[in-house]
Order: sequence, then C-alpha cells, then structure tokens
Amino acid sequence: MRMYDLIYRKKTGGELDEDQIRAWIQGVTDGSVPPEQSSALLMAICWRGMSTAETLALTLAMRDSGARLDLSSVPGLKVDKHSTGGVGDKTTLILGPIVAACGVPCAMFSGRGLGHTGGTVDKFSAIPGLKVELAEAEFIRSLKETRFANSAQTAAIAPADRRLYALRDVTATVESIPLITASIMSKKLAGGAEALVLDVKCGSAAFMKSKEEAEALARSMVAVGKAHGMAIKALLTRMEEPLGWAIGNALEVMESVEILCGEHEDSVLAQLSFRLAAEMLVAGGGATSLAEGEAKVAGVIASGAALDTLKRFVALNGGDARALEDFTRLPQPIHEEVVTADRDGFVTAIDGRSLGLAAMELGAGRKDLSDPLDLGVGLRIHAPVGRFVKKNEPLLSVLSGGRFGPEPQTLASAFSLSPQAPPENPWLVGQIA
Amino acid sequence: MRMYDLIYRKKTGGELDEDQIRAWIQGVTDGSVPPEQSSALLMAICWRGMSTAETLALTLAMRDSGARLDLSSVPGLKVDKHSTGGVGDKTTLILGPIVAACGVPCAMFSGRGLGHTGGTVDKFSAIPGLKVELAEAEFIRSLKETRFANSAQTAAIAPADRRLYALRDVTATVESIPLITASIMSKKLAGGAEALVLDVKCGSAAFMKSKEEAEALARSMVAVGKAHGMAIKALLTRMEEPLGWAIGNALEVMESVEILCGEHEDSVLAQLSFRLAAEMLVAGGGATSLAEGEAKVAGVIASGAALDTLKRFVALNGGDARALEDFTRLPQPIHEEVVTADRDGFVTAIDGRSLGLAAMELGAGRKDLSDPLDLGVGLRIHAPVGRFVKKNEPLLSVLSGGRFGPEPQTLASAFSLSPQAPPENPWLVGQIA
Repeated sequence: MRMYDLIYRKKTGGELDEDQIRAWIQGVTDGSVPPEQSSALLMAICWRGMSTAETLALTLAMRDSGARLDLSSVPGLKVDKHSTGGVGDKTTLILGPIVAACGVPCAMFSGRGLGHTGGTVDKFSAIPGLKVELAEAEFIRSLKETRFANSAQTAAIAPADRRLYALRDVTATVESIPLITASIMSKKLAGGAEALVLDVKCGSAAFMKSKEEAEALARSMVAVGKAHGMAIKALLTRMEEPLGWAIGNALEVMESVEILCGEHEDSVLAQLSFRLAAEMLVAGGGATSLAEGEAKVAGVIASGAALDTLKRFVALNGGDARALEDFTRLPQPIHEEVVTADRDGFVTAIDGRSLGLAAMELGAGRKDLSDPLDLGVGLRIHAPVGRFVKKNEPLLSVLSGGRFGPEPQTLASAFSLSPQAPPENPWLVGQIA
Repeated sequence: MRMYDLIYRKKTGGELDEDQIRAWIQGVTDGSVPPEQSSALLMAICWRGMSTAETLALTLAMRDSGARLDLSSVPGLKVDKHSTGGVGDKTTLILGPIVAACGVPCAMFSGRGLGHTGGTVDKFSAIPGLKVELAEAEFIRSLKETRFANSAQTAAIAPADRRLYALRDVTATVESIPLITASIMSKKLAGGAEALVLDVKCGSAAFMKSKEEAEALARSMVAVGKAHGMAIKALLTRMEEPLGWAIGNALEVMESVEILCGEHEDSVLAQLSFRLAAEMLVAGGGATSLAEGEAKVAGVIASGAALDTLKRFVALNGGDARALEDFTRLPQPIHEEVVTADRDGFVTAIDGRSLGLAAMELGAGRKDLSDPLDLGVGLRIHAPVGRFVKKNEPLLSVLSGGRFGPEPQTLASAFSLSPQAPPENPWLVGQIA
C-alpha cells in the first residue's frame, strides 16, 4: 500500500477498498503516514465524497484504532443518542434518565464545549462532586445499577479520530459528510452503542444550515449504522433559537430537572427530549411502537422514576443528589441583570450563536480547551420565539460571576421583534430510518 | 492572514487574492506554513482550479522566493523554450545554437532526468569536460560571447517551487494546470526569460494524453505569460513515439550534431526543432514573421553557423568541442545487440515509455536523483513510425555498458507492427498565441 496511490485514486474519483482505508488509519494511528499525505487525502475526500462502503470501512478502522468498551456483561441492547449540537441543548440530561427508567440501558459518551456551544460533560460537571470521566468499571457499574451511564470520552477511544480531527481542524476539512459520519460513528461504536438515535439539526442556529445538508448527513449516518447491523434512526429538527430557557451549566441542570419534574411540557425542549427518548426505547427494544414509547416516557415523568434515576446516577458517581432538589447547592452566579425589549413586538427569532458567545465570555464556555469554566453563570431567556413582549418587558437575564461579558443591553439585538406573530414552524422537519 | 482561511476559501470555490498567495508562498519558503496545510491547499487547487490572476500571483510569488538572474547587461530580448518533455527530446541542444546563431540571445535553464525521461542537463553532460551548472557570471559570459547559455537550475532559483514540488510529488497533486503553470513559469521568469516558446506535447508518449488537456495547459501558460507582458507562444505537438533515433545521452548529442549538420531534415525531430527555433526568433524579435524565421534557421544550418555556435559554447564552458566532430571522443557503449522484427509489417507506434525505462535500466537515466549515469549507453531506433520492416530486419539496437537492461529481444514488443501503413499524422496539432 503506497499512500500516494490512495490519494491519487480518491483525487481522480475512484473508490478506496477496506484494506486501503485500514492501512491509512493504521498509519495515522502509529504516525507512519505523514500529516501532509493525510491532509491531501482528507481534502480529496471533501472533493469526491465516499460511498457507504468506504464510510463504513473508515468508521470501523477508526473504531479499531484504540480501546473498545465491552458492555456484554450488561443485559439488553445498549442505546445512545447523538446530536449535532446547539446552544442550550441539554437533552442528554433529560432523556438519559428517562430511557433508563423505562428499562433500556442507556450508555452515553459526551463531549466538552468549545466556542459558542456548550458540552454535556460540562453541564454534568455543574453537579457538585459528580465524576464526569468514568473508568470502564465505573461506567459498567453505573449502567448495571441505574441503567444510565454518561462519561466524557477517554483518550483511549478512537485515537485515530482525534489525530485526524486535529488535522481537519487546521486544513478546512471538517465539513465533509463522510468524515463527520465516520468521526461520530466510530466513537459511538467504540463506546459500545448497539442502538442509536440521531438528532440532526438544521437552521440558523445549527451547524448544518439547510435541511438538505442535514438530511444528507442523517442519511449517511443511518446508512453506515444499518450497514453495520445497528438499530438506528435520525430525526431532522429545526434549530432557530437556543433550546430551552437556560444557557450555562448549572442553569441547564436546573432546567433539566424541571423538565423531569413535568414542567415546561409544551416547550420544544421537553417535546424534543421526550420524542428522542421514545425513539431510543423503540431502537433499544424497550417499546414496540413510537406510541408505546411515548406512553412509557410520560409514565416515568409522571411517576418521578426518571428524576429518581438521575438522582441515583448522581449519587452513585460521587455527586450531591440533593442539589437536584435544592438548587442553591448548585454553583451560583453573583449578579443578575435584566435585558428588556426596546419596543413592543413578537419574538420571531433568537440568535443562538451570539448568545452562546456571550455565555462563553461570562465563563459558561471556553475559547480554548484549557480555559477554566464558571459553572454558575449564563443566560436565562424570558421571551422565547412566538412570545409577545411590550417595551421594557424582560427578554433575558444575564447571570454573571467574576468575569465581564458583553454590555447586557446589547444582547437585546439577538432578539428579532416584529409586529406580526411568526409562523408556527414545527420543530420536527423529517426523519430518516 | 490565517492559512485556514485560504484553504477554506479555495475549498469552497472562492478566489485567493495576491496578498494571500504571497503570504502562503512566503510561509512555504520560510517554513512557517506546515506541510499539512500546504498539501490541503494544493489538493483544493487541484479541485477548484485557479483563475489567470491567481496563477500569475502564484507564479510571481514563487519567482520571488529566491534569487533572480539579472540579464540586463546582455543586449536583446532573452528567449527561452520549455517543453513538457518526452523520451528522446533533445530539441534544446539543436535549437539553442540555431537561435543564438541567428542573433537572438538564448538563455536557457534545463533539468536532469528522472524515471523514463531524460534531462537536457544530462545530455549536455555527455560532452567531455562541459560544465553544466554555470554560475551567474559564467552564464552571462556565455550569453555575451556566444549568445547561447544553458545551465542546470541552481538551488537558489525559486526555492518555494522546489519545496512545493516535493510536497506535490507525495500527495498526488502534481497534475493540476495552474500548479504546473506556476512551477514552470516561475523558474523561467526567475531565470531572466523575456520571451518564451512552449512545446506542449500530447499523445500516448506525453505527460498530457489528450489534446484537450495539452491545450488547457498551453492556454494557461500563455495567459500567465501575456498577463506578465511576455512575448509567448505555445505549439501543441503530437508525441506518439520517441523523438528521433537516439535515446541516451552521448547518442542524443550525436543526433543533435547530425541535425545541425543538415542531416535527417525530414525527421519530426528536425522539423520540430527548426519550427520551435523560428518561433523563438519571432518571439525574441529576431524575425518579423515565421517565414523569415524559418529562412534564417535554414541559413544557419546551411552555413554551419549553428553548429559553430554549439562548438564555441562547449569550448567556452570547459568542454571538448572536438567531440562534436569526432564522436569517438564521446562516452561509448561496450556492447551492441540488434533487436529484430518477428514478422513483416509497418511500424504504427513505438512505446516511448517502455523504451525510456529500458534506457534507464541500462544507465542512461536514473530511478533516484542520486543514481550515477552511464553516459555512453542507450538505444538506437532503426525503424521509426511509418517504416515497413521485413521479418528479422532490425528495429533497434541496444547499446549497453556494464549494467543489465531488459532482455533485448523483449523490446520488440514496444514496436506495433501492422499490415496497413499508419495514417499520416501531422506532428503539429495546434498553436496558442
């Protein structure tokens, strides 16, 4: 295998075979393929794309580049969820305990936040004492005892993906459907997922702006999952505003607990979380139909079993479960400033990216992976899309700690106000199964 | 200037501006741009192409990455030629002295051979004593005294091109019209060329297989030259067999001298060399029309002035000019084996690549840049395309030295024999001015 031949083949529109892809990823892992050859191949893949067979081969080669979690000692089909992410997305904190409370083992791996988007690991880390990076034995124990486990990805999982991602990040080759697919799917498979539900977002606040792009990515991931024999389904969801009222780590824990207590049940956040949970039950064999899954979800919310699962998960892994009942035990902000509307109008859109960046500056997120977080700070949205506000009524609160964010009132410009009510846009815009 | 932004811009089909291209090439030259970013950009250029403005900016940035030859002390427009190369191409040895003898200063830089193609520098090096890498002062003295100078490119010229080429060579990004254009034109401009004639070959024995590819490359180079204010013209020529009877360094010197003596005047080699020389006279201001140029070329052949110029050039630069009259003073082979036809037929094609590789194995060329050459060995073609041969009549001679080449008779398969005479294909298939 000469690396040159692989690059030439892909550059000229040919298809790589499994052995070639494995050899490349082996060379990435052991450092024998120089980065300049990998980056040329990455750009050629952006250009020419990859077939499902190639994408699956790349996924499996990256999965096999490091440790694989063996969850065979845990009974049942292990289910996970992946979201392409967005400001305020705390669905994992909600649906994980729900699915587990419904009897399906929910084995989840999450990331840390960077830039304007937060990370699930950071949100969990706002719960005092909770260990967010679990060793394999701890992860399995948590799954066995609570049917729920969530951990930060360890460095042992899919090291080839980490090396390639570092290269993609500096060579403008992140945006490629087969490369995104293989990056996500390799980590999910190495983490032991056997069933998977995808939340692929599109819209102004999402990574994929158009429905077409989101659909293409969803199709690619579903095709690779199916080719590997996984139970897999993707929802295409609209993302035109931050998800829920909370942006910031402790605030998002509070909102998640509220949802698990049955509050805000008409919000997009609650509806999306419940729907994803029901899909996970179907994929994981815990329900035979979506309707049955939705009924089970409603049941564990009403009974308190879902919140109880979250508490048991927290307590088992070193966390202070009382903080989920008494929010004063969570990290707190120091100041609150209310940002108000400068005129009457309907909220027609909220710019999630600018609010995400504002929260980052307050300390809820990080510019560099080494930046420390202020877990108590963030933003509370008072006026979601569709709400009518009068002049001087509150749009959002800025909850700050020791760091300066933007001048609060400037954040009013993130809210588009109009005399007309916005059209009712359903949050679910498609599904790929 | 962030390198990421350049890559992203080109990847998404945008145009780079002059400052961005200069900054990239500066970073390539000083090593501050890592190779993985350059190779990603190179592949994106293969994908998206470059406008004439971008290609000119790249050409000039690479020209300015190192030393530039100042030929202003030599009167007249300095003219050079570039050929995309082919097995047996010794036109420089013929047309350089012709153009100079016609009064136009001919300032040429050449390369060494690699793989199946030879290099003009290696051919000159078969003349005993001739210095083939001239210092600037020597080059200028040769131009002033004989109006002809030919030297190997020095490492001081266009170092960015050398670094990029090394990267292109391992990342399958050699084949890109703007990158080929900038590589050639930057070196020609740095070498002081003010007028340029291009011989862009197409056909089975050429780098560009189709006329369309060759034409696209010719158009790109002419556009860049014109945008820079150069007198420039390209000929598109067919290359379906080795050029001339000789393959191998001393053998090619002999054939060149024969042509300068007026022999083989109906051969493609003579016709091509004379036509290129006439075009160079027009481009360099030594003739006002092609017809006038061709008449001048015929004149310096008939008078012996062209051969005399070559002898003076050789003598001035340390070479044994007597070797151009007495070929026994040139490096000699040890053995000669004659390869014969296995049946009657017209020669319809000769596979230049397989003969070039055979000559390389004998020692006429090199696999690696560090391989030593055997300057006396090579192949002599007895039956060019169009010739009718009878069974057991000679096709070619293998002239070997101390190294083993392929079993001689196997080389008969490089000759296609047919009962029908091949169609008359003109060697000149187009021109771009």
